[in-house]
Amino acid sequence: MKKVNKTIDLIEQRVSLRKFADRKISCQVKNQILHSTLRAPTAGNMMLYSIIDVVDQHKKEVLSRSCDNQPFIAKAPLVLIFLADFQRWYDYYKLSDVKDYCKQNGKEFIGPTEADLMLGCSDALIAAQTAVLAAESLEIGSCYIGDIMENYETHRELFELPEWTFPVTMLVMGYYPDNRPTPRPRFNQEYIVTKDIYHKLTDAELQDLFAERSQRFKPDNSLAAQNFGQFMYGRKTGADFSAEMARSVKKFLKHWQGEKL
Amino acid sequence: MKKVNKTIDLIEQRVSLRKFADRKISCQVKNQILHSTLRAPTAGNMMLYSIIDVVDQHKKEVLSRSCDNQPFIAKAPLVLIFLADFQRWYDYYKLSDVKDYCKQNGKEFIGPTEADLMLGCSDALIAAQTAVLAAESLEIGSCYIGDIMENYETHRELFELPEWTFPVTMLVMGYYPDNRPTPRPRFNQEYIVTKDIYHKLTDAELQDLFAERSQRFKPDNSLAAQNFGQFMYGRKTGADFSAEMARSVKKFLKHWQGEKL
Repeated sequence: MKKVNKTIDLIEQRVSLRKFADRKISCQVKNQILHSTLRAPTAGNMMLYSIIDVVDQHKKEVLSRSCDNQPFIAKAPLVLIFLADFQRWYDYYKLSDVKDYCKQNGKEFIGPTEADLMLGCSDALIAAQTAVLAAESLEIGSCYIGDIMENYETHRELFELPEWTFPVTMLVMGYYPDNRPTPRPRFNQEYIVTKDIYHKLTDAELQDLFAERSQRFKPDNSLAAQNFGQFMYGRKTGADFSAEMARSVKKFLKHWQGEKL
Repeated sequence: MKKVNKTIDLIEQRVSLRKFADRKISCQVKNQILHSTLRAPTAGNMMLYSIIDVVDQHKKEVLSRSCDNQPFIAKAPLVLIFLADFQRWYDYYKLSDVKDYCKQNGKEFIGPTEADLMLGCSDALIAAQTAVLAAESLEIGSCYIGDIMENYETHRELFELPEWTFPVTMLVMGYYPDNRPTPRPRFNQEYIVTKDIYHKLTDAELQDLFAERSQRFKPDNSLAAQNFGQFMYGRKTGADFSAEMARSVKKFLKHWQGEKL
């Protein structure tokens, strides 16, 4: 890929970084990343998200276990949890007597809905990727930890999360080491981007899409998989961490659908 | 804000753009944006998302009505819908006889779960914000249209969406006009970012948080609101578009929770 401009170059060269240089991130640099992050687009300028900056080493260690046992989390210089957050507005509506307002205007007061949760997740994720790219521009790499959606009860207690918040993603960050990992290949654009209509892939197209990846498949694998599809199912979708994430997200969603926590 | 580097400068200056310059986006530039977008971080390198590039003018016009009646959508040079997409992997698992693999290994085959949907939404939103910043670096502005989550049935038919996809966000893009809008103020960092623990705001803190915004509140407003909180509820959370989004998302979620579409 030829060089285009600095922002595009850093997007194209970015990797998920799990080994960081032995170098602290100063308060000034952290504040720069956070300032830029808060400039991220947000639905109706409502900022339906919050960020927890995890500094406490004990909490980092709990996270390294609760998020699918990934010890590098505890070693990261910067750990940021991104929450979908409707609590702040819910409390402000209460303070503003919105229920009375609804009654006086013949409307039913609508508490947080699944759509508010999705908007909050959107805001949180858009902010997270803004943080990633602001950090990259300062030579700081990052790794997303989607596993923060697992073990909701543990995280709720550890961070004292109120009911209308949900930890949707986490970023661990640190300076790039001298040996920078190489970006991994992505699927071809023609299979991800379509014009005007969704294109459901045919079997032949699926084989072509996965051709490069399935070449790396090893028949003598620990998952007893016979092909790459089975291997990926065993390693990802059907793995224990996925079952835990499914349980945790399902439980949390039920709360937004009316069940008590 | 002092200048730091080009990426941070464009993050800090970015606005939601709804009026575009009268200038087309060339295929080459569009492909550059899409190429960078596909470099976005993605869970397990699975790319659980798809993008529909809406070129057809009729479809843009339908979207301008179905997404809360915003005519500028139909005038945007570039319209990209970001879908959470588990369909591709689901089909590949089928092609790879994953159900047999599960049976032979004494496991239950797990179809797409709510967690897969959340991971797909995460991938899609992280890709979208990567597109936004790649575009900004090429002097192309954008506006998020979260309203694409409304009217799920209409969009499903219009774009022939298969069942394991969900349109979680849309971007409309075009070159900045000569008069660039000014970025809007955000909430103070101290109320969005906390250290080690979530901080539920007190009433006094909420008043302080909203002080600047509530100063702009006009008592003689069309929503009969008595204060800024009531006004925002009437204009956003309690508005018709929110009720439609709540309905649409609820219906879609029920499908991922086992109901037939």
